[in-house]
Amino acid sequence: MDGQQPHIPRVIWFTGLSGSGKTTLALALKARLAASGITRIYHLDGDQLRQGINADLGFSLADRDENLRRAAHIARLFLDEGYWVLASFITPMHSQQAQVRQLLPEGQFVEVYLDTPLEVCQQRDPKQLYARAEVGQVADMTGVRSPYEPPRSPELRLNTARLSIENCMDVLMSSLAEQEGGSVICRL
Amino acid sequence: MDGQQPHIPRVIWFTGLSGSGKTTLALALKARLAASGITRIYHLDGDQLRQGINADLGFSLADRDENLRRAAHIARLFLDEGYWVLASFITPMHSQQAQVRQLLPEGQFVEVYLDTPLEVCQQRDPKQLYARAEVGQVADMTGVRSPYEPPRSPELRLNTARLSIENCMDVLMSSLAEQEGGSVICRL
Repeated sequence: MDGQQPHIPRVIWFTGLSGSGKTTLALALKARLAASGITRIYHLDGDQLRQGINADLGFSLADRDENLRRAAHIARLFLDEGYWVLASFITPMHSQQAQVRQLLPEGQFVEVYLDTPLEVCQQRDPKQLYARAEVGQVADMTGVRSPYEPPRSPELRLNTARLSIENCMDVLMSSLAEQEGGSVICRL
Repeated sequence: MDGQQPHIPRVIWFTGLSGSGKTTLALALKARLAASGITRIYHLDGDQLRQGINADLGFSLADRDENLRRAAHIARLFLDEGYWVLASFITPMHSQQAQVRQLLPEGQFVEVYLDTPLEVCQQRDPKQLYARAEVGQVADMTGVRSPYEPPRSPELRLNTARLSIENCMDVLMSSLAEQEGGSVICRL
């Protein structure tokens, strides 16, 4: 049903702990948007940027700030080309969340907070980062040794421990299509 | 004639002094490519980046290196999306020219050296930079107080003092379409 398809390109910024499902949901959303006929969709991936333009940055607070600042600017370049941008970045600090939002146009920025319990993320541990952190190979692991500050006013909140990927997509697509503008809290 | 149309997306990197015609030719090429039916064309402009992602950088040699490193990475992101990327950057040093080339795929990088005499660039002075440099308001003006090292093996060399914009486009479009791979020196 065309009325249920989103039309205005936006930056969908997935924030949450490692293992909360940011990349999984970004890729699922990419497939959904593509299936709805959208051709310009860009998955902006933190790991990919760190192998390229952000290869000069480490994981200090200042470097993480800069990593996110550049990512938001790149998102903007693609948005200005008419792209839907799906961004997967932990974005742990309120200051970073605010900076990202400030760099993107109001009404075209959708912060999706993956509110998934740390224990679930640790069980998933897709990159084995929690395991490596436990033996001291990853310093300042977010959620363990360094803080994750839950976004104050995300456009959408999803608990991926309770929702399937398909459920998340249904909620996301309908909230994008409806463009209610307000905050949709999904605690299913 | 379709045989005269280029098909493989490439990064066209215009290098030369301020006033040599980098942005003018990039925009003319953008129009030509669009007229040939290409829809994904990105003009990567140094001034634009310096207002956004590169706003943290100045004009020291290190900062100019970083400005160009990031620009090349962004060009790559768009190229990977199937875009023709038209980049306008002075890119004065051999080391910078080499770095940019190294960051982009062989065979999809076209360095266009605008070999326009300094005196002509100074007369044009589109941004009034030469005038401002003369009264000390621009330090290290490239071509005057800091060096411009002509590229050693550009894919194309154009003297915009002798060639009209249309001439330059004809040469550029046909050399892109022919994909001769070798260096085309145009001294008309």
